Amino acid sequence: MSKPTPLSGFPEWLPGQRLVELSVLDRIRTTFELYGFAPLETRAVEPLDQLLRKGETSKEVYVLRRLQAEGAGSDDDALGLHFDLTVPFARYVLENAGKLHFPFRRYQIQKAWRGERPQEGRYREFTQADIDVVDRDTLPFPYEVEMPLVVGEALGGLPIPPVRIQVNNRKLCEGFYRGLGVGDPEAALRAIDKLDKIGPAAVAALLVESAGATEAQAKACLALAEISASDASFADAVAALGVSDPLLDEGLAELVQVVEAASAAAPGLVVADLRIARGLDYYTGTVYETQLLGYERFGSICSGGRYDNLASSGTDRFPGVGISIGVSRMLGLLFGAGALSASRSVPTCVLVALPDEESRPACDRIAAALRQRGIATEVAPSAAKYGKQIRFAERRGIPYVWFPGADGDEVKDIRSGEQVAASADSWAPPEVDLRPQVIGA
Amino acid sequence: MSKPTPLSGFPEWLPGQRLVELSVLDRIRTTFELYGFAPLETRAVEPLDQLLRKGETSKEVYVLRRLQAEGAGSDDDALGLHFDLTVPFARYVLENAGKLHFPFRRYQIQKAWRGERPQEGRYREFTQADIDVVDRDTLPFPYEVEMPLVVGEALGGLPIPPVRIQVNNRKLCEGFYRGLGVGDPEAALRAIDKLDKIGPAAVAALLVESAGATEAQAKACLALAEISASDASFADAVAALGVSDPLLDEGLAELVQVVEAASAAAPGLVVADLRIARGLDYYTGTVYETQLLGYERFGSICSGGRYDNLASSGTDRFPGVGISIGVSRMLGLLFGAGALSASRSVPTCVLVALPDEESRPACDRIAAALRQRGIATEVAPSAAKYGKQIRFAERRGIPYVWFPGADGDEVKDIRSGEQVAASADSWAPPEVDLRPQVIGA
Repeated sequence: MSKPTPLSGFPEWLPGQRLVELSVLDRIRTTFELYGFAPLETRAVEPLDQLLRKGETSKEVYVLRRLQAEGAGSDDDALGLHFDLTVPFARYVLENAGKLHFPFRRYQIQKAWRGERPQEGRYREFTQADIDVVDRDTLPFPYEVEMPLVVGEALGGLPIPPVRIQVNNRKLCEGFYRGLGVGDPEAALRAIDKLDKIGPAAVAALLVESAGATEAQAKACLALAEISASDASFADAVAALGVSDPLLDEGLAELVQVVEAASAAAPGLVVADLRIARGLDYYTGTVYETQLLGYERFGSICSGGRYDNLASSGTDRFPGVGISIGVSRMLGLLFGAGALSASRSVPTCVLVALPDEESRPACDRIAAALRQRGIATEVAPSAAKYGKQIRFAERRGIPYVWFPGADGDEVKDIRSGEQVAASADSWAPPEVDLRPQVIGA
Repeated sequence: MSKPTPLSGFPEWLPGQRLVELSVLDRIRTTFELYGFAPLETRAVEPLDQLLRKGETSKEVYVLRRLQAEGAGSDDDALGLHFDLTVPFARYVLENAGKLHFPFRRYQIQKAWRGERPQEGRYREFTQADIDVVDRDTLPFPYEVEMPLVVGEALGGLPIPPVRIQVNNRKLCEGFYRGLGVGDPEAALRAIDKLDKIGPAAVAALLVESAGATEAQAKACLALAEISASDASFADAVAALGVSDPLLDEGLAELVQVVEAASAAAPGLVVADLRIARGLDYYTGTVYETQLLGYERFGSICSGGRYDNLASSGTDRFPGVGISIGVSRMLGLLFGAGALSASRSVPTCVLVALPDEESRPACDRIAAALRQRGIATEVAPSAAKYGKQIRFAERRGIPYVWFPGADGDEVKDIRSGEQVAASADSWAPPEVDLRPQVIGA
């Protein structure tokens, strides 16, 4: 084999980085479970027609075929890798509705794939951590309040920069455009969604062109998008624009609830930001995006919203709300900036030195005794000189080397050089050394 | 959307089953880390030429293409989903050799995909849990002893039937065939590998036909394959066949070491079984297969071996040894037999009942206080009658319902009906109720 090279868009971490990622995923999972979300994993593939239901995503899909099924019209021809975890979840709910209890709360931590052009923080293969709640027929509103609080708690315990969750409400925007008299409110929403990319002048032109807005209406749409506040004061700013519509009022009331509950539970976490639109057209209520402070230019690391019509079949309808943490995206940015690392590259806390090959069974018993008490332990690969065995530990960041002795064992902290008598049945390292620690910037 | 139906070969578990799977994976991961294996995750795709290096697997590969790259000669045309975790690991080691420390111990718990015909316990998408150790140039033999002990400890702590790891050594077989004078020892190994599938008579014919054996030699090969023992006595049985060869002696000595060390550390776990050949031709020393007792007819649930030439590039050579637990296979069989389940279908331990919608902030504070102390808690979705709220908990197996009260809260164990005064700042459930329990047959 010639030396392989990386594939653009398919990130692979080094073992120390993977330790960090697992620690982040553990924190996220523990928080999700504390809130009662049940775990779920769906298959990596979906029938292609399911994946293409939303036109905009069609170009991003990886299609599968079996190598032996060359050109044949096999059923596998119609499979593609999922590009998010929401579409598979909606399909799973419909498929298993008879076996689930509603409202159904689930979390899902998995890979997804998109064939789009790779760039910093944007990959072709990436890990997402999602929570969703779906209910049959109607979904209680308080779940829309809960979503950002769960994410804030999951990410808040990590040594990463603080996050700010930007919240808006589709009803508010759509009601505003309607009350204003804009011809195509949905097109207006899609235009506003481009604000960060193309700027206000181009969006104004687009509003006129594609949404049937007058120039004055376009200006009002942009004025709405400029409103942002970390408390309910945004409602006054909206009122000051002088537009009135029942859907607008409903959206305003909902957004006030989300912002007020969040500012009581987690001050500073959530901000109402009326430019947030979310491109995907299945959202129907609250929508979320998330900035990692200091990394705002790379876009949202956690997004989602309320959807009423994603999971429906015949008369069965399962409205839901969900939010998705872009774990690979977040870690890629932080690793790239050197802002996140592990205290060592292996789980190992103790290396048992091997005096000679005959002592291996005794060394294995020492290792077994330490592991029995939860201390990750390796035995040295060979009976090299002790200096070499200590360097083996040093290179990996293993903090302790254990020396078996005829008159009793000793253990050395190779960072301080301190060496003390110890028994494998009772010795324990300080808590901080037991497992690799995740270190922030 | 019309109601979706399952895809054959792509298993999806219900939430309670996924709870079981996560608990199994947690146990496996904890054990791997206690032995100092570092975590690793490789991308799902490999260049197709890498995947096809071993001819036998070509028919099983799923090939990818981007939907928009219709027929074009894009670089994505050459990607396929990996069919195991060993080939990607070997590639990763070559690609990152300069950044790794050798010997390098890693574990990897991921999905793999094979386009083969689905049957019970055999899937198109499945989760594997692998450990491998690779070293530069030479690999110390004791790692071949360690592999089955790690697996025995990982699976031993689970409420599943006991496992028996069958061990053999390629050098022993190849040396025996060579000493016997069989023309093509590799072909002989491949014939013996078919013993379970086609029986001794057909294997004897195959040995004559494809390996150039005489009928007497074929008989001797079958006699070797019949030898099995849980201690070193198998070596006498081999000697009694009267074949002599230096490679045979080397293989015998290694297998004796594996069996003796295992029977000292974990009596009954490992058995020398000289019919174990492992079809993949990259193994060069110890090989492993594993029976789940009571499910032997479904084949091995955990396999692997020593390989000397899988990861090599130019003059760089990284011999290794590894073993892979077929998690989906094992769980699929046990779920299918009703032999493994969870005590409840959600992580939730406490449901906080909602007296009225105005009390929601107070109920949220109770839930937060319980979560703060590691107790998974949900607040009821709506202020329905208490009977309905209790049924919400019952249906999901949530053991406790919390009733907020003006004069103090109470918590009810809805299984026993016992209701006691409680404070969210101090009450805790019995340890066994804190998390869902995995229940064996």
